[in-house]
Amino acid sequence: MQDQHTPPSERARVRRAADRGHYDAATIQAIVDDAWLCHVAFACPDVLCLPTACWRVGDRLYIHGSNGSRMMKHLASGAPACVAITHLDGLVMARSAFSHSMNFRSVVIHGHFTEVSDEAKPTVLAALMEHIAQGRAKDSRPPDANELKATTVLGISLHEAAAKIRNWGPKDKDEDLALPFWAGVLPLRQQQLPAISESGFEGPLPAYAQSWSVQQAHAG
Amino acid sequence: MQDQHTPPSERARVRRAADRGHYDAATIQAIVDDAWLCHVAFACPDVLCLPTACWRVGDRLYIHGSNGSRMMKHLASGAPACVAITHLDGLVMARSAFSHSMNFRSVVIHGHFTEVSDEAKPTVLAALMEHIAQGRAKDSRPPDANELKATTVLGISLHEAAAKIRNWGPKDKDEDLALPFWAGVLPLRQQQLPAISESGFEGPLPAYAQSWSVQQAHAG
Repeated sequence: MQDQHTPPSERARVRRAADRGHYDAATIQAIVDDAWLCHVAFACPDVLCLPTACWRVGDRLYIHGSNGSRMMKHLASGAPACVAITHLDGLVMARSAFSHSMNFRSVVIHGHFTEVSDEAKPTVLAALMEHIAQGRAKDSRPPDANELKATTVLGISLHEAAAKIRNWGPKDKDEDLALPFWAGVLPLRQQQLPAISESGFEGPLPAYAQSWSVQQAHAG
Repeated sequence: MQDQHTPPSERARVRRAADRGHYDAATIQAIVDDAWLCHVAFACPDVLCLPTACWRVGDRLYIHGSNGSRMMKHLASGAPACVAITHLDGLVMARSAFSHSMNFRSVVIHGHFTEVSDEAKPTVLAALMEHIAQGRAKDSRPPDANELKATTVLGISLHEAAAKIRNWGPKDKDEDLALPFWAGVLPLRQQQLPAISESGFEGPLPAYAQSWSVQQAHAG
């Protein structure tokens, strides 16, 4: 079990503003669970950075895509990958331009993906449905054999990962504190707006759609 | 001038769901301008994907950091890079698990960064202040000579880039349309919450802080 202050590897060590680094599973998992998408970097052979949906089961992060996808094919081969998840929580306004910053929560994961077996695929994909909305796995048509066959699901360990968090106000240099400029935070969060039903839908919304715009579980 | 439908290069061509690809500057710039951060991928030699602040001036995207930063040093050498910006606008709930999707606006940029000259640096950094909040460049202490010297500013052309947009409801297979499951969109946006002043601040908020939580210019 990784403690909060010890990086799991040299390449996972937070370099800049190292006091913002966290390496414990609880911190990493909480940031991952607040995300519906990640950015995946790999070299194929040009270095690429692509957004894709993500979700967590246990100590692994999962992504999925069509078997034909360049990214899926490349990553399924075990190629080195780096995955980043970032939540922007605010713009930090210091009195000096130089001391401006951002409040954020990020996770950077190093390693490589492995393919989820045909046997495990339905369970791991059901977890994606549940990550999207609790109860959705049973409130949708599950994938049939052809759909499962057409989908590659890849997982990467969260062991070699680092979280980085900044969640405080501006830190001006002492000599700037008396300057006559406003200092503070302009906060941001991911807002959940009321669910929009497809035209023709009648009847009550399912619980997860009803509560969507009021629960604000994410980045709240 | 790139038209909407023609990729600027083979590696910039959108592969999956190619009908969602856009290559014109107006579409790319609008997505970039809605972002305060991007993810930058590079190989150093391990492939890395790191979040960092970004802003646009003309047809270039800029990032900045300490001269000592591994990322800044590596990218300043002209190493190949790929930059991604993604706004998540909603979770798209189809009747079948397989047809679930996300509404999003993304830009992926290919190329390499070049360093901004000492002469141009103050102007490019002032543009970052203005991107954070209109009027902030003049309502903060500008960087002094030492601060400018300690900061590397890098720019990358937006020419070799692709935007990808999905902004519509679920598209179920015909045979799934009558299934008794809710279908629709769970919308998301980046919300601007009321400005938080540093303790001790008295007097009226500057205009950009007053209007922050009501203007909702971003992803609105």
